[in-house]
Amino acid sequence: MKESWSSVDTLETNFRPLVVIELAKGTKEETIEWFTKRIVDKKANGGAQLLIKPLVTENGNENIYLVGASHLRLLLGAENVGLVKECNDNSMRAFTYSSRKTFKDFADDNQNFLTMSECQYIIKHELENLRAKDEKMIPGYPQAKLYPGKSIVRRLLTNGILVQIFPLHDREELKKLRHTWYGQVKIGYQPLDEIRCYFGETIALYFGFLEYFTFALIPMAVIGIPYYVFAWEDYDKYVMFATFNLLWSTVILEVWKRICAVMTYRWGTLLMKRQFEEPRPGFHGVLGINPVTGREEPVYSSIKRQLRIYFVSVPFVCLCLYFSLYVMMIYFDLEQWALDYHEENKSHFSSLMLYVPSIIYAVVIEIMNRIYRYAAEFLTSWENHRLESSYQNHLILKVLVFNFLNCFASLFYIAFVLFDMKLLRQSLATLLITSQILNQFAESLLPYWLQKRHMKKMKERMHSLKMDTDLSLVEQVNSEKEMGTYLGTFDDYLELFLQFGYVSLFSCVYPLAAVFAVLNNITEIYSDALKMCRVYKRPFAEPTANIGVWQLAFETMSVISVVTNCILIGMSPQVNALFPDSKMDLILTVALVEHLLLAIKFVMAFVIPDKPRDIQIKLAKLEFESLEALKQQIIAEIPQEESLSLKRNTRMKMLLEMIWAGQEANETCG
Amino acid sequence: MKESWSSVDTLETNFRPLVVIELAKGTKEETIEWFTKRIVDKKANGGAQLLIKPLVTENGNENIYLVGASHLRLLLGAENVGLVKECNDNSMRAFTYSSRKTFKDFADDNQNFLTMSECQYIIKHELENLRAKDEKMIPGYPQAKLYPGKSIVRRLLTNGILVQIFPLHDREELKKLRHTWYGQVKIGYQPLDEIRCYFGETIALYFGFLEYFTFALIPMAVIGIPYYVFAWEDYDKYVMFATFNLLWSTVILEVWKRICAVMTYRWGTLLMKRQFEEPRPGFHGVLGINPVTGREEPVYSSIKRQLRIYFVSVPFVCLCLYFSLYVMMIYFDLEQWALDYHEENKSHFSSLMLYVPSIIYAVVIEIMNRIYRYAAEFLTSWENHRLESSYQNHLILKVLVFNFLNCFASLFYIAFVLFDMKLLRQSLATLLITSQILNQFAESLLPYWLQKRHMKKMKERMHSLKMDTDLSLVEQVNSEKEMGTYLGTFDDYLELFLQFGYVSLFSCVYPLAAVFAVLNNITEIYSDALKMCRVYKRPFAEPTANIGVWQLAFETMSVISVVTNCILIGMSPQVNALFPDSKMDLILTVALVEHLLLAIKFVMAFVIPDKPRDIQIKLAKLEFESLEALKQQIIAEIPQEESLSLKRNTRMKMLLEMIWAGQEANETCG
Repeated sequence: MKESWSSVDTLETNFRPLVVIELAKGTKEETIEWFTKRIVDKKANGGAQLLIKPLVTENGNENIYLVGASHLRLLLGAENVGLVKECNDNSMRAFTYSSRKTFKDFADDNQNFLTMSECQYIIKHELENLRAKDEKMIPGYPQAKLYPGKSIVRRLLTNGILVQIFPLHDREELKKLRHTWYGQVKIGYQPLDEIRCYFGETIALYFGFLEYFTFALIPMAVIGIPYYVFAWEDYDKYVMFATFNLLWSTVILEVWKRICAVMTYRWGTLLMKRQFEEPRPGFHGVLGINPVTGREEPVYSSIKRQLRIYFVSVPFVCLCLYFSLYVMMIYFDLEQWALDYHEENKSHFSSLMLYVPSIIYAVVIEIMNRIYRYAAEFLTSWENHRLESSYQNHLILKVLVFNFLNCFASLFYIAFVLFDMKLLRQSLATLLITSQILNQFAESLLPYWLQKRHMKKMKERMHSLKMDTDLSLVEQVNSEKEMGTYLGTFDDYLELFLQFGYVSLFSCVYPLAAVFAVLNNITEIYSDALKMCRVYKRPFAEPTANIGVWQLAFETMSVISVVTNCILIGMSPQVNALFPDSKMDLILTVALVEHLLLAIKFVMAFVIPDKPRDIQIKLAKLEFESLEALKQQIIAEIPQEESLSLKRNTRMKMLLEMIWAGQEANETCG
Repeated sequence: MKESWSSVDTLETNFRPLVVIELAKGTKEETIEWFTKRIVDKKANGGAQLLIKPLVTENGNENIYLVGASHLRLLLGAENVGLVKECNDNSMRAFTYSSRKTFKDFADDNQNFLTMSECQYIIKHELENLRAKDEKMIPGYPQAKLYPGKSIVRRLLTNGILVQIFPLHDREELKKLRHTWYGQVKIGYQPLDEIRCYFGETIALYFGFLEYFTFALIPMAVIGIPYYVFAWEDYDKYVMFATFNLLWSTVILEVWKRICAVMTYRWGTLLMKRQFEEPRPGFHGVLGINPVTGREEPVYSSIKRQLRIYFVSVPFVCLCLYFSLYVMMIYFDLEQWALDYHEENKSHFSSLMLYVPSIIYAVVIEIMNRIYRYAAEFLTSWENHRLESSYQNHLILKVLVFNFLNCFASLFYIAFVLFDMKLLRQSLATLLITSQILNQFAESLLPYWLQKRHMKKMKERMHSLKMDTDLSLVEQVNSEKEMGTYLGTFDDYLELFLQFGYVSLFSCVYPLAAVFAVLNNITEIYSDALKMCRVYKRPFAEPTANIGVWQLAFETMSVISVVTNCILIGMSPQVNALFPDSKMDLILTVALVEHLLLAIKFVMAFVIPDKPRDIQIKLAKLEFESLEALKQQIIAEIPQEESLSLKRNTRMKMLLEMIWAGQEANETCG
C-alpha cells in the first residue's frame, strides 16, 4: 500500500488529511490497490492526482484511508469546479490558476486561501469524477460492472465496497465557530460567513433563511399580541391584520430573494457556473449512447419515466391523499362518538375518553407520514431520475403535498365544513404548540442527551480525560465515523414551511401563532446549530445560489393563504352582519377582495426586483468588461486579416467573465 | 469627398451598397468630411472601417450616401455582433473568424455566407457603435455636444443632421420572396425562413406567431360553428365550450414557447448572446460616471425616474382610465336617451338616432386612443429610460392597459352590470367585426391603393415603362427613401392581443368569435405581407429569441378570461336553474370551479417544458462540450505547474461555447 501513495512527489510532513474514505471490512487487496492507484495517479493517466494514506490504528489497518492533496492540486481543482473568489479590486471573479495573483489574500505560501470546506469540496468533486477507463469491472468484484466514463466512486458505493466518504472536522475551527455561534448568550446575528466557511453555502443559506424568517415574523407577532391581550374580536381589526399579513408575506418572500442574492454574491455562488451534473448513484438503464455526451453509458427512456410518473406515482399520491382524508373523517367520527359517550355517561373515564381520538389521530398521522416518506422515496427512485436534482425535486414535491394535507386537512375541515371558529383556534393552537414542542425535543434535548452519552462513552473508551481538541487523528477519525450523517436541509425547511402554514393560512383567526413561531425559531437556531456542530458528521459543502424549490413552496403557501383568509373573514359574524339582506353580496364582495389581493400580490412580486441594484450593477459591470475586451480584440485583429488565431489569448480570457455575468445584467446600467 | 472613401484599399467594382444614409440638406461640408472620415477610418483609429460612396443623381449630390463593407470586414463584424450560424456538424455555434472553416456553406469567396439582412444589421451595429473620441462637439455644429464614448450617429440623429439610415431592398430577392409568400394562391405555411433571411427575426417571428395563432384558433372555430348553426343554448354545452377554450388557450400559449424555441434555435438567435445595450437616443442627463462602464456619460438617477413613474405616470394612466370609463357611462346614458326618444316618437328620424350614440362613441374611442398614445409616448420618454428595451416595455404596458379598457369596458359593463347577455353578444359581434373590417381596410386596401398611386407617380417621374427590377440604383434609392418607415411590430401584436380578448374573454357567450378571428387572420397574413414588401422601407433586421412582453400579455389575458367565463356561466339561467334554492351555493360552486381552473392552468404552465426535448439536448450538448474541454485543459496543465498561461488557447476557445449553452441545459441529458 505504502509505495502507491508515496510515489507522488510530496513531502509526507505536508500531508493534511481532509477527507476520510472507509472501505468495507474484507475488501480484496487487489481492489484496494487498484483504487488507491487510481486516486494518486496523474491526471493525464486518468487519475485524480490526490494524496492518500491509510489510517493505521492500534488494531491494525481498518480499511480507513485519509485523502489530501497538494496546494497546487487544490488550486487547479478550485479552477476546475469553478470556484468564485474575491479579487483585489473587490469584484468577484472565477478563480483561475493563471490569474491567481489578482485574487485577494492569495500568496503562493498561503495555505488558507482556500477554506478547509472548499478543499474538501474540491476533493469530493475530484473523487466523484474519477472515471473508469477501459476497466470492464472493479478488480476483484466481477459483479460490479464498469464502462468507460462511469464514476468509480459511485460504483463502489452502490456495490457496498465503499462504506462512506466524509470530510474531517477541524476541531480548532469548530470550537471557534461554536463559541461565536451559540457559545455565548448574546442577541445578534448569526456568524453566517463563518458558518459558510465551515459548512458550505447550502447550510449557511438555511441558517440565513431561518434567521431572516424569524426577524420577518416579528412584526406579525408584535401586531398579533394586542389581539390576544385585549381579546379584540372586531371585524375591522381582523381584516386589517389579515391584509397586513398577506401583503407582508409577499414582501418578505420577495425581499428574501434580494437578501439571498447579496449573500450568495459575497460567497461567490451567485456567479458560479453550475457544473455539468453527473447521473445519480441509483440511476440504471441499458447501455446506450447519451445524446449529450456522445459517450456510452446507461440510458433510460424519458417516456418510460413520464409513464411511471403519471400512471403510477401520481395515482399513488392521490390515493394516499384520499386515504389521509378518510382517516381524518374517521377521526372526526371518533371525536363525535367520544363526545356523545361523555354526554351520556359524564364519568371520569368518559372525560378521559375525550382525549383518546386526538391521541390516536396524532399517532396515526405520524405513522402515515413515516410510511409515506418511505413510499415516496421508493417511488421516486423507481422513477429512475438521471440527476440528483430532479430526484430531489420530485421527492420534495411528493412529500410536501402529503405533509401539507396531513397537517392542514383537519383545520380546513373544521374551518370550511364545520364552520367552528372556536374549535379552529383551539386545534390550531394545539397543533402548532405540540408540534413545536415535539420538534424541539427531537432536535435539541434528544441530541443534547445523545451528545452527553456519546462523550461519556468516548471518554470511557479512551481511558483518559483529554479535551476533545487534543484527540489524536486516529481517535478523531474513529469518533467521527460513528457519528450520524446529516441528510440535508429537507426536514429543516419542511418544518419552517409547515410553520409558515400555521402562521399564515388562518392568521386572522389566531394572530398569536406568529408569537409562538418566533419563540420556537429562536430556540430552533440554537438547537440546529448544536445539531450541526455536535451530533452529525461534518457534511460536504455544497455550493448553491438560492433555496431552490422552497422559494416556490413558500410562495404557493402565501397564495393559498390569501384564499383561506378571505373565506375566513367572509364567514365571520361581524362581516355577515354588514350584509344583513343578502348573502350573495357578501360572497361577491369577498370574491372581489380576494381577486384584488391576488392581483396586488402578483404585481408586487413583479415590481420588486429579485436582485438589489448594486448587485445588478456589479453583474452588468462584469458583462460589460468582457464584451469590451471582445471588441478591443476584434479591432486589433482587422489589419493583419489572417493568422489571427494566436492573438486571441487575451480575448478568450475575458470571455471567461461573460460566463459569470448574469442574464439580466444587461438591463441595469443607468 | 471622393478621396475619403477611395482611400480604403478596396476595388470600387466590388462595392455593394447595403445601407443608405441621408443627411439633411445644407449640412456643412466640414461635418460631412469628418463623418465620412470616421466611417472609413481604421478600427484601430476608432473608425468603423466601412466603405462609403456619395450617390450622385442628375440633380447633383443630394447628401445621400451609400454604405458598404468588404467581405472580411463583414465577417469580423458578424463575430462582433455574436451571430450564430450552423456548423458542418449541424450544430449551431457563434461565428468566429478563426473557426470560419467549420461553418456550413462557408468559403472565402462565398459572398452569400451572410445574408444581405445580416450584412445590413452588422453595418447598422458598426455605425451605431461609432463613438466620439476626444471631439467635444460635432464639427460645424457647436450646439451638438459630444463626449468620449458617445455614439456619433445617435447624436447626429437627435440633432437632425442625419435624416435617416435605412437598408436597401434587394429587388431580385424581394420579387422571389413576394412570389413564394403571397404571389401564388396556395394553402400552406408561410416561407418563414425566407422571411427571416430578408426581414430579420423580429418580423419573421411576428408572422410565425400570426400563423401559429391562426392555426390554434381553428379548433375553437370548428367547435364554435355548431353552436351557431344549431343555436345551442344548453348550459352543459356552453360549459364544455368554455372549459375547452380556457385549457386550450393555456396549451397554445405554452406550445408557442416551444415552437418559438425551435424556430429561434434554427435561426441562431436562441443561442445569441445579447449585446450590451446602448442608451437610447432620447436619453439625457448630467455628465457623470456610469457605474457599469466606468466611463463619463450622461447619468440619470434611477430614483428620479421611479418618482416620475409612480407619482406622475401611474396617476395619469389611472386618470385616463377613469376618464375612459366616464365616457363609457355617458355613452350608455346617450344610448338610453336615444332608446327613450325612439319609444316616444317612433319616427324614421328617431330610429336613425338609435345609431348616433354608437357612432359617437366609436369616434370618441378612436380619438381617445390616439391622444392617449401620444401622451403615453411623451410620458414614457419624459421618464427618461436609459435603454430602448425598458422604454418599449413601459410604453407597451401603458398603451396595453388603456386599449384593453377602451375595448372591453363596455362589454364588461353590459355583462356584469346590466346582465344583458343578448346585448353582450350583439355588441361583441359588432365590435369584433367592425374593428376587423376597419383594420383590413387600413392595412390592406389603403396600402394597395397607395401602392398603385405610388407606382403610377414613379413611372410618370421616370418617363419610362421599365420594370421595377430594372431601376437604376439612383432611382431605387430615391423611390425607397420616400417610402414610409415601418415602426415595428407593436400595432400588429396589439391587434392580435385585442382579438384574443374578443375570442377568449366572452367565449361562452359568442362561440362564433373564433370563426371571424380565423377568417380575419388569413387575410391579415396577406395584407401584412403586402405591407412589408410593398408599402414600407425595408426595416433593419433585429435578432430576437422570443416575442417578449407579448407572451406575458397573452398569458395575463388568458387568466382574466378564466374569471370572466366562470362568472358568465354562473349568470346563465340554465346554471341558475340548477341551484333553485340558494344563490349562495351557486356562487360558491362557481368560485370553486374558477379556482380549480386557475390552479390547473398554473400547473399546466409549470408542467409543459418551455423548450422541446431535442433543443434541450442540443443546448446541453454545447454546454457539456465546453466543460469537457475545460477539464481536458486542466489535466494537461498539472504536470508543468508554472508557465501555463500560454497553453490556455484551446481551452479559452472552448469557453466561447459555454456562452451559447443555455442555463437549464444542464438538466436534460438522459
